[in-house]
Amino acid sequence: MGENDRKKLAIVVQSGTLDKLYCTFILASTAVAMDMEAHLYFTFWGLNTLVKEAMEKAGLSVTYKHLEKQMRKNLERMKYPRPYEMLKRLKQSGLLKIYACSPSMEMFGVKREDLVPEVDEIAGAAAFLEVAAKADITLFI
Amino acid sequence: MGENDRKKLAIVVQSGTLDKLYCTFILASTAVAMDMEAHLYFTFWGLNTLVKEAMEKAGLSVTYKHLEKQMRKNLERMKYPRPYEMLKRLKQSGLLKIYACSPSMEMFGVKREDLVPEVDEIAGAAAFLEVAAKADITLFI
Amino acid sequence: MGENDRKKLAIVVQSGTLDKLYCTFILASTAVAMDMEAHLYFTFWGLNTLVKEAMEKAGLSVTYKHLEKQMRKNLERMKYPRPYEMLKRLKQSGLLKIYACSPSMEMFGVKREDLVPEVDEIAGAAAFLEVAAKADITLFI
Repeated sequence: MGENDRKKLAIVVQSGTLDKLYCTFILASTAVAMDMEAHLYFTFWGLNTLVKEAMEKAGLSVTYKHLEKQMRKNLERMKYPRPYEMLKRLKQSGLLKIYACSPSMEMFGVKREDLVPEVDEIAGAAAFLEVAAKADITLFI
Repeated sequence: MGENDRKKLAIVVQSGTLDKLYCTFILASTAVAMDMEAHLYFTFWGLNTLVKEAMEKAGLSVTYKHLEKQMRKNLERMKYPRPYEMLKRLKQSGLLKIYACSPSMEMFGVKREDLVPEVDEIAGAAAFLEVAAKADITLFI
Repeated sequence: MGENDRKKLAIVVQSGTLDKLYCTFILASTAVAMDMEAHLYFTFWGLNTLVKEAMEKAGLSVTYKHLEKQMRKNLERMKYPRPYEMLKRLKQSGLLKIYACSPSMEMFGVKREDLVPEVDEIAGAAAFLEVAAKADITLFI
C-alpha cells in the first residue's frame, strides 16, 4: 500500500493536561499500529508540553487534581510508558508527524531550540487544515 | 437502506462532566433520529460515568461549578431527561453502540460487573478507530 | 469552483473560554483564507459567548486563570484581533456560518434579541449534523 493510501488520523492537541496527553498518544499509537498515519498539531497548552522537559511535568486540571497522585501510581503499576516516552517510540514508526503551532510559540515566547527534537514542523493552522481535510478521522483534544 | 449505508457519528467521550454528557447524548439522539448510527467510546472520566449510578452524580467542572444548581433546575423545568435516561432510550433504537475503554477500566480498577448493562463492548482504542475511520462525523468530547 | 465543491470545516463550539474561542476563530479564519466554508455551531458555554458583549468578557478556565493577564498582554503585543473582531471580519467573507443552539438558548434563558447580529441561524443539533456529515473536518471544541 502506498503512503498516500494510508488512512490518516489528524488531531489538534490544544490541551496540556496529563489525561489528554495520554488520550492523544494512545490514539496515535493505536493508529500507527493499524498502519495509519498520525498527524498531531500542538497548539496553546499543548504546544507548551513540547518544550523540553515540560511534558514530564504535565498534571491534571483543577477539577481532577485530587486524583493525580493515584493516577500516576496506577499508570506505573500498569507499566504504562509516560507520554514523552510514547512520543519518542511513535516517532520510530515513521508514521507520526508532530507540528508545533507557530502563533502559539510567538504568544508564549517559545523558540525552536526550546522544543523537543521530535518536532517535525513549525507551522500555522493552514498546514494542519490541509492534512485534516484529507484525513479519515479528525479530533480536537 | 442497508445498515452499512447508514451515516455514522463516532465520538470519544473522554469527559465526565454533566455539560459534556448532555452534549454527547443530544448529538447521539439527534443522529439516531436522523437514522444515523451513533458510536460512543467512553474513556477516562467518561468511562467512570458508565459505572452503575455514577452518571446520575456527574456535575460540572470547577470553572462552572457555581452554575450547576441552576442548570439542573432549568433542565428539570424543560423536562429534559437526564443523561442516563437518554442513554437507555437511545439503546432501544438499535442504532447506539456503547464501548467501554479497557485500559481505562484497568487504570481505574473498574470491572465489567461494575458497568451499566447498556455497554455493548469492552474494547481498546483500535475498535474505536476502525469505526471512526468509516464514520462521517468524528468528535472528541 | 461552485459553492458545493468547497471543502467544509464544521465545529461544535461548546466551550466559552478565551483560549478555545481563539482556537475556534483561528481555525475558522485559516479555513476561510483557504477558500473553505466554516460552520460554527455554538452550544452551552459557547452559546453564552454569542450574547451581546459577552465574548469580550471571556476568560480562561480555573486551571489556567493565573495566566490570563499575561496572555491578554501577549495577544495585544502581537496585535491579535480579539475573538469578536475575528468573528465580524470572518462574516465579511461570506464563508462563515454561525449557528446558535436553540435548546441551549432555552436552558440559559437567552432570547434572539440578546444575541449578536452575526448569528445566521438559530437551530437544533440536526442542522449541525446535516452540515457536519458533509464536512471534510469535524471538531468539538
